Amino acid sequence: MDEFDQIAALFRPLTLGAPEALDLLDDAAVIPGRPGFDLVVTKDALVEGVHFLPDDPLDLVARKLLRVNLSDLAAKGAEPFGYFLAIAWSPRCDLDERRQFCQGLAQDQTQYGVRLLGGDTVSTPGPLTASVTLMGWVPEGAMVKRSGAGVGDIVLVSGVIGDGGLGLRAVRGELAQLGEAAVSALATRYRLPEPRLDLSSILMRYATAAADISDGLLADAGHVAAASGLGLRLNLDRLPLSDPAKAWLALQADAKTALLDLASAGDDYELVCTAPPERAGAFIAAAAEAGLALAPLGEIFAAPGLELMYQGERIAADRTGWRHS
Amino acid sequence: MDEFDQIAALFRPLTLGAPEALDLLDDAAVIPGRPGFDLVVTKDALVEGVHFLPDDPLDLVARKLLRVNLSDLAAKGAEPFGYFLAIAWSPRCDLDERRQFCQGLAQDQTQYGVRLLGGDTVSTPGPLTASVTLMGWVPEGAMVKRSGAGVGDIVLVSGVIGDGGLGLRAVRGELAQLGEAAVSALATRYRLPEPRLDLSSILMRYATAAADISDGLLADAGHVAAASGLGLRLNLDRLPLSDPAKAWLALQADAKTALLDLASAGDDYELVCTAPPERAGAFIAAAAEAGLALAPLGEIFAAPGLELMYQGERIAADRTGWRHS
Repeated sequence: MDEFDQIAALFRPLTLGAPEALDLLDDAAVIPGRPGFDLVVTKDALVEGVHFLPDDPLDLVARKLLRVNLSDLAAKGAEPFGYFLAIAWSPRCDLDERRQFCQGLAQDQTQYGVRLLGGDTVSTPGPLTASVTLMGWVPEGAMVKRSGAGVGDIVLVSGVIGDGGLGLRAVRGELAQLGEAAVSALATRYRLPEPRLDLSSILMRYATAAADISDGLLADAGHVAAASGLGLRLNLDRLPLSDPAKAWLALQADAKTALLDLASAGDDYELVCTAPPERAGAFIAAAAEAGLALAPLGEIFAAPGLELMYQGERIAADRTGWRHS
Repeated sequence: MDEFDQIAALFRPLTLGAPEALDLLDDAAVIPGRPGFDLVVTKDALVEGVHFLPDDPLDLVARKLLRVNLSDLAAKGAEPFGYFLAIAWSPRCDLDERRQFCQGLAQDQTQYGVRLLGGDTVSTPGPLTASVTLMGWVPEGAMVKRSGAGVGDIVLVSGVIGDGGLGLRAVRGELAQLGEAAVSALATRYRLPEPRLDLSSILMRYATAAADISDGLLADAGHVAAASGLGLRLNLDRLPLSDPAKAWLALQADAKTALLDLASAGDDYELVCTAPPERAGAFIAAAAEAGLALAPLGEIFAAPGLELMYQGERIAADRTGWRHS
């Protein structure tokens, strides 16, 4: 199969017949405006050996690629719509590997309601490299930005923190002491993050600011505060942890350092957001109704910077990767 | 400089303060709709050693990356607006190389009126790999498609054909016999294609279908006919050639084979388009007024397939890369 046959066989079905994609037969896609809505666009890339392991199954790689982009849209309150894919196949990507990659895309397309609109397939002598440009809709002017936090806002985080970083250690075989079930659960969290799209419409109602957690909770919470021109206090005691993370924590000599590790690791793909204190309760209740836990971790204050609290004491935040603005 | 400092120093200036880009501080960009317009989106990727040579200066690589995408929008009649960049820096890309890449972007941004809206920067142990997702506007429903050709339409091509392919041979040192000036002119055509944006509004007035020529004239003209469910006849005698290409042609033993070579080589980034015969004259005149030559090369007919004519005879089209639908 040459390039055109592969586009027809592997990629055209992923358009689901979307008129915007013009059956992938044209130079470009055409997206009609949606009156009363803005288009939200994000673009993230993955490189083999950097963002995933060389022996990771390509269907999981494809799903992770879609999901890290979906996570960005979730944080903006946007409804995902369609995506553009550029993929540089490496020499190991025979037709079966390519099919497996596309099967992963198809599976998550169904789960998240998106379709392929266009892109480019090329070859590389180097590692498999792929980028997705994902588009979604938000009501005009309503995108949840990083810069909207206000003084006194509560800082909340979805789900659990640290599983992404522990998951990377798990797939590297570094956490055997936790037992097979925990290792498997953590590895899945690393390989297949869960974009918090169920939270996105709730975010739009309640959140003043939000970001997804790809660089680590402390870094991304810091980005929200910095983009808002403000500072924040976070309480490490309140870090929501999964059972495997709790089991890992119990084995660590220094709990404070271990909690900082979890709060600094990347790849969680949870959401960190802010809301005025008087609305935080309703926000948490609405999220719970959608099946998602939101944990209040701290608050926004006026002076730029990060204050970390642990067992009632302020601790130094030098290992956090958080950058002062 | 860490990732965030580099984004601030190298990439933020490329947004030109566009409000959509949110200073590259957010998870996503937000693009308000433009009433009465559709968004046209294309995404093309380049890989070092595949689409450009490992010693090509990175400012030229960046400009080529923008231009191959701009060429797609030109073929659709679209007005370029902004772009998303994903770049995987290779180990050789030190800060100076990165700066040079961004200087190339800045230069062509000014020339073509586009700005950076978002994207992702990562590292790769492999070759430099980059993709651009470029967006432009067209009046609602007016995008020039590949599929709009009609029976009897004239097939026209902009500029000159074959310089892209000869340019690749020139940069590989294979055309020394042509002399320094010709080699330099051809190499520039390969390294720095000229997207035919000056033609795009004229296309929208006159053309029934269009595509940019990246895979070779015969392949891309064939794509237009195939997307339209029709066939086409092209006359190789009418191939518009540059002076260096004419000089190269004069040195070839078999002119017919040489013309097929030129018509099959990629990387021309000219436009191939169709127009009804009664409008072709006005189309050519309007293009000439904009400083661009349009050459009529043949016509569209009903039976799918490609007929190639040379010196009044029909010739076999087996070396052309053109695929029957």
